[in-house]
Amino acid sequence: MIIDCHGHYTTAPASLQQFRDAQLARLADPRLPVPPEPEISDDEIRETIEGNQLRIARERGHDLTIFSPRASAMGHDVPDPATAAEWARVGNDLIYRVTTLFPDNFAGVAQLPQVAGEPLDACVSELERTVSWLGFVGCNLNPDPSGGYWNSPPLTDQYWFPLYEKMTELDVPAMIHVSNSANPAVHTLGAHYLNADTTVFMQLVEGQLFDRFPTLRFVIPHGGGAVPYHWGRYQGIAARQKFPPIEANVLSNVAFDTCVYHQPGIDLLTSVISADNILFASEMLGAVRGNNPDGDFPWDDTKRYLDAAKLTDDARAKIFEGNARRMYPRLDARLKEAGR
Amino acid sequence: MIIDCHGHYTTAPASLQQFRDAQLARLADPRLPVPPEPEISDDEIRETIEGNQLRIARERGHDLTIFSPRASAMGHDVPDPATAAEWARVGNDLIYRVTTLFPDNFAGVAQLPQVAGEPLDACVSELERTVSWLGFVGCNLNPDPSGGYWNSPPLTDQYWFPLYEKMTELDVPAMIHVSNSANPAVHTLGAHYLNADTTVFMQLVEGQLFDRFPTLRFVIPHGGGAVPYHWGRYQGIAARQKFPPIEANVLSNVAFDTCVYHQPGIDLLTSVISADNILFASEMLGAVRGNNPDGDFPWDDTKRYLDAAKLTDDARAKIFEGNARRMYPRLDARLKEAGR
Repeated sequence: MIIDCHGHYTTAPASLQQFRDAQLARLADPRLPVPPEPEISDDEIRETIEGNQLRIARERGHDLTIFSPRASAMGHDVPDPATAAEWARVGNDLIYRVTTLFPDNFAGVAQLPQVAGEPLDACVSELERTVSWLGFVGCNLNPDPSGGYWNSPPLTDQYWFPLYEKMTELDVPAMIHVSNSANPAVHTLGAHYLNADTTVFMQLVEGQLFDRFPTLRFVIPHGGGAVPYHWGRYQGIAARQKFPPIEANVLSNVAFDTCVYHQPGIDLLTSVISADNILFASEMLGAVRGNNPDGDFPWDDTKRYLDAAKLTDDARAKIFEGNARRMYPRLDARLKEAGR
Repeated sequence: MIIDCHGHYTTAPASLQQFRDAQLARLADPRLPVPPEPEISDDEIRETIEGNQLRIARERGHDLTIFSPRASAMGHDVPDPATAAEWARVGNDLIYRVTTLFPDNFAGVAQLPQVAGEPLDACVSELERTVSWLGFVGCNLNPDPSGGYWNSPPLTDQYWFPLYEKMTELDVPAMIHVSNSANPAVHTLGAHYLNADTTVFMQLVEGQLFDRFPTLRFVIPHGGGAVPYHWGRYQGIAARQKFPPIEANVLSNVAFDTCVYHQPGIDLLTSVISADNILFASEMLGAVRGNNPDGDFPWDDTKRYLDAAKLTDDARAKIFEGNARRMYPRLDARLKEAGR
């Protein structure tokens, strides 16, 4: 089977965004009423999923998508913990409904109510709630909740440890994924996302986080940002600065996804990084939509690139399925229970 | 001939750093005396160059290096304009001496006395001084003088225009190059450098800077950060967000260097980006030193990768020489004068 480890509900019904707008309006003007939770019918969910992610997944032959709220709308830069908690709860509940309406096609991953500089208690609670009660199989973790100003400590810092303890206890991984850039110098999709992937990888190279949390697991999306393209640079820096070998220190617990939207990029990724450390993903419908005019196929049809890449059957099976089942054991258990 | 467009005087005599340390100490404690300028003999310069950059350039067959003060030591995050001006002047004067001792092998590029949030007058003056009086052929431009907090406007903002006017008048390009990261979340060499390359490229994609400054030219180092690896992403985002086509809007005035330290990276760069937009560079002795243990050759021997890349003779000539002469016309004029 083919598991797409990186999908967001970017096509959610408009009333979700209306709720968010009302939430932010009330934050600016507390005299406004508390906005009611968005009313979204099952039919609306069916329509927005069946006409979009599910239709395209079927066309391309993806079997299951690991699915979370829209990344760029997580809005961790809004400095109000109560707002963040409510927004994460509403978004995750909607993802839960997607997974109950389409249990064969979607598995949930949680948005965490992060706020820069705040303790992680609310994140730990929301992770517990979504995994233990809603059947989610992982979470997204934002290494820069400020939205482009990078004022949080590196992911190797003890600030993050309460969350890692809960992740370890629940045996769920995190996809490292920033939200929108609030910084006019840094474009969300064309810079901030990729910079975060690159930055976090280097934080892990510098640190020894997995010595302390040996079963903690991260997926770094967007093909690892700049990392595979600069693999020689990382190897050389690690040797020169006497960091532990990257393979044992980082790659034992970290994988890259395949959200790289052209053949040369996927060829580089799969030639430089071990197939054990690559998870299939398309992020559709995500940052990049529409067709490559040169070939008249969608930019984000990453399965096409992987089909064309020089890979053994074994490597391809790991990338499409095996690694995701290993990284997300709660998903694996559910699939096994269903005889898949 | 082979022109390496990206070298820094990372091997400068220790008294340069002692001067800097004294400068910073006095900034912290104004009761300390004004430090005297470092005393460095011609022999010291010869020794540090001949034993390092020049020796390696000769071994590899590089003919000329475009040379600037150490990037990671530019220290633009130190918030004192007078200190920045003095430090740039001392560093640039030392580069000038290198270029007079080895006129066939080095051409100077200026450090600018940038300070986040300050006007650019001192940068304009230092550019004028180094180009008009010291024969420099370009400058380094730091898009994030804060050192990893990204609080400056994008390079398309009018804040930067006074510098662009002077660059245009003098007909010199800038290499986009940040200095050290002052941010504990962001490693200087393994994240900040690459993130800056990626961020600035996207700033240029979003804007229309070269409509206003049609002869302004930038070199984006380190192989363009994450950009070529994600070329499909940039094409797709530009189309979706209705930005002008990248080729006409950005690549008419921008080139990437070849500081990518493994064969697959150089192969991707040269297969995705036109040979008209690639400038040979090694950044030796830079971020990455030492040998790749797999092949027992230096990571930063980028000429080796380019020699092995599938390139026509015409493309290789552009990358090694022609594009640098086009981007740095003052260098070209000097070379022609010398019959080279």
